[in-house]
Amino acid sequence: MSENILVIGGGPAGLNAAVMLSELGVNVTLVERDSFLGGNPKKFKYKFLFPDMQPADNVIGELIKKAESGGGIKVYYSSEISDFKENGKKFDVTIKSADGSETKTFDSVIVATGFEHFDPARDAKYSYQLFDDVIDIKDLERMMGEDNFVRPSNGKPPKNVAFILCVGSRDRHVGNQYCSRVCCTVSVKQAIELRERFPDCEAYIFYMDIRTYGFYEDLYWKAMEEHDVQIVKGRIAEITSGPDNTVICKGEDTLLRGPFEIPFDMVVLASGMEGGPQSPEISSKLGIELDEHGFLKPENITLSPFKSNKPGIFLAGACTGPKAISDSITEGAAAAMNAYAYVIKNR
Amino acid sequence: MSENILVIGGGPAGLNAAVMLSELGVNVTLVERDSFLGGNPKKFKYKFLFPDMQPADNVIGELIKKAESGGGIKVYYSSEISDFKENGKKFDVTIKSADGSETKTFDSVIVATGFEHFDPARDAKYSYQLFDDVIDIKDLERMMGEDNFVRPSNGKPPKNVAFILCVGSRDRHVGNQYCSRVCCTVSVKQAIELRERFPDCEAYIFYMDIRTYGFYEDLYWKAMEEHDVQIVKGRIAEITSGPDNTVICKGEDTLLRGPFEIPFDMVVLASGMEGGPQSPEISSKLGIELDEHGFLKPENITLSPFKSNKPGIFLAGACTGPKAISDSITEGAAAAMNAYAYVIKNR
Repeated sequence: MSENILVIGGGPAGLNAAVMLSELGVNVTLVERDSFLGGNPKKFKYKFLFPDMQPADNVIGELIKKAESGGGIKVYYSSEISDFKENGKKFDVTIKSADGSETKTFDSVIVATGFEHFDPARDAKYSYQLFDDVIDIKDLERMMGEDNFVRPSNGKPPKNVAFILCVGSRDRHVGNQYCSRVCCTVSVKQAIELRERFPDCEAYIFYMDIRTYGFYEDLYWKAMEEHDVQIVKGRIAEITSGPDNTVICKGEDTLLRGPFEIPFDMVVLASGMEGGPQSPEISSKLGIELDEHGFLKPENITLSPFKSNKPGIFLAGACTGPKAISDSITEGAAAAMNAYAYVIKNR
Repeated sequence: MSENILVIGGGPAGLNAAVMLSELGVNVTLVERDSFLGGNPKKFKYKFLFPDMQPADNVIGELIKKAESGGGIKVYYSSEISDFKENGKKFDVTIKSADGSETKTFDSVIVATGFEHFDPARDAKYSYQLFDDVIDIKDLERMMGEDNFVRPSNGKPPKNVAFILCVGSRDRHVGNQYCSRVCCTVSVKQAIELRERFPDCEAYIFYMDIRTYGFYEDLYWKAMEEHDVQIVKGRIAEITSGPDNTVICKGEDTLLRGPFEIPFDMVVLASGMEGGPQSPEISSKLGIELDEHGFLKPENITLSPFKSNKPGIFLAGACTGPKAISDSITEGAAAAMNAYAYVIKNR
C-alpha cells in the first residue's frame, strides 16, 4: 500500500495509532520530540498502572516493541514539525531532527502530543521547592519504581505520608478550573502500594471529592477497608515546617468541621494535567483549534472527540484533555480508524 | 471486499463501529434486539447530551442515518443471536428474527450490547413506585424532551425539585459497589436545563461526591454560579409523603452536620447503569468473560479495553462498564479498527 500517515507523538495514544495502522500495511511516520518512545509514562518512569496494578512497562513496553520492530513504522526521535502545509486533501510536512530537515507528503495526520504535569512550584502554599520532603505524584511513582522510597531530607523511611489531591486542578487561583480526572485514582493506588510495601507507614489522603469514577471505585473501598488509608475531606491551606524535621499540613476537615495541623514525614502533591507548551504551538502550526483550557479541541466533543476541526487531522489521547492511559490507547485506535477511512475515501 | 463483520447492538458504540467499517468497504451485519436503532439514548428519548447540551437526536440521528443509508450495512431489527460457534478463526452465527433464522459466517464480531438503567424500585427507601412525583433520571429526560415537565400527581409545574445521586451506585445494599460514572454530570446538566427553562423552580442536588470529572467540571461551576443550583453533601435515608401533596427527603447534611427533612414537589432519582440481563447471556453464548459487576470483561483493562478474552471478538461501549456516549462512540471506532486488523491478518 502507498498510504502515508503521520503520527505526531510517541506516547500511549500515538504508539497505538501507529501500531494499528502498520498492521493494515499503512506506511506510518512517527515523530517524537524526546529521544525515546513511551511518552510521560516512560519519561517519569511510572511503575504500576491503575486499576489493576499492571506494570507500566508491560503496557508501554509492548507498544514500543511493536513500533520499533520495523513493520512499516519510521520513527523520528528528538524531532519536531518545523513546517506544515495543506496540499489539497494531503499535507506537506517538514520534520526537523538532528540529521537535518526532511519534507514529506502525508495522506492524513494524527496528533497525539499528550500533556504536561502541573508544576506544583507555581502555587507557593504547597512549599514544593522549599521542603525536600514535599514531592509530587510523579516523583513518588519514580521513587517506588526505583525501590527507593525514603525521605529525601534524610534518606530514612517515612512514618506517615499525606497525599494532597487537586494540586493545580479545580483551582481558579492557578488558572485551571477543570478536574484532572485521574489524580484521585492514582493517589489512591499509590496509597495502597505504600501501605502494602511499608505497613508501618500511615497514609492520609486530603480531598475535595474522591473521583474514583466507574470501576475505579473498587480501589477506593480497598484503600479504606483493606489498607486503612485515612481519607479526609478538606482542602489544604498551607504547608509549613514542623518540629523534628516534619512538614505540617494545615487545613480544615470540612466533614468533622474542625481545623487541623498535622505533622507528616512526607507530603505527596497530586499534581494535575495540563495541555502544556506544545499544544498552542501544534495548534498554530497545523491550524487546528485550542480549547479554553489549553488543550486541543475536538470538532464535536460528543460525536467525534477524535477529529480536529480540520478534515484529515485527527486527535488522540491527553492532548485533548486529562485522560487515563487506557482511554489514550483506545483513542489511538479510534483516531487510526478515522485516519484510515479518510485516506481510503480520498484515494 | 469480502470481509464480513458482525456487530451486536445498535446503540452509539455499535452504530459507530458499523458505520466506520462500512466506510472501508467491509460488509457489516448489525443485529439489534429492539425494533429501532439508537440504543438507550433513543429508547429513553434523551433530549440534550452533556457536556455541550447538544441535541441527542443530532448525534444518534446522524449515526442511524448513515447505518440505514445502505452502504454495506445489513440491519436485523428485533433480532438476537440464537447460536454461536467458532469455525477456525471465523464464527458461524445464527440470527433469529421474526422472519426466521439465518446462519452466516463472520470473520470477526464486535459486541456492543450496552447497559440497562438501574430500577429504583429495587430500593424501597426511594419510594419510586409509591409516589407519582418521584421519577428517575430517564423519566425526566423524556419529560423534558416532550416539553411536558409537570408533576405527574397533578399536572402542575413543580416549585422545587430534588436530584438524588448514586441511586443503585456505590451501594453494597443493592449489590452495586461501583460508581456509574455519568449520573453526577447528567444530573447537573438536568438541573441547569430545569433552572433555565423554569427559573421559578428551585433545584437541589444531594450527593456523596460530585464526580464531574475532567472538563465536566465546567458544568458543576456553571450550575452553582450561574443557575443557583443548591448542592448538598448528604445521602438520603428515606423519602416519605409530606403535607400539601409533597414528598419529603430525609437525610443528613454531612458538611453542615445536621439532619434535614425537606418537602419537595418532585424528586429525580439519578439511577445508575447496570450490565443488564443481556450480558450474562451474551457472555455464555459467545464464550467471553463477565466481570464481578455483571459487565463484559476486557482481556486487559489497560492495554486492550476493546478486546474480549477471545481472539476475533471485540468489545465497545457500556457493555464493559458505565460510560459517556462520547466514550462509547470512540470505543466503537477502536473496536472497528481492531476487528478490521484481525480480519486483514487472517485473510
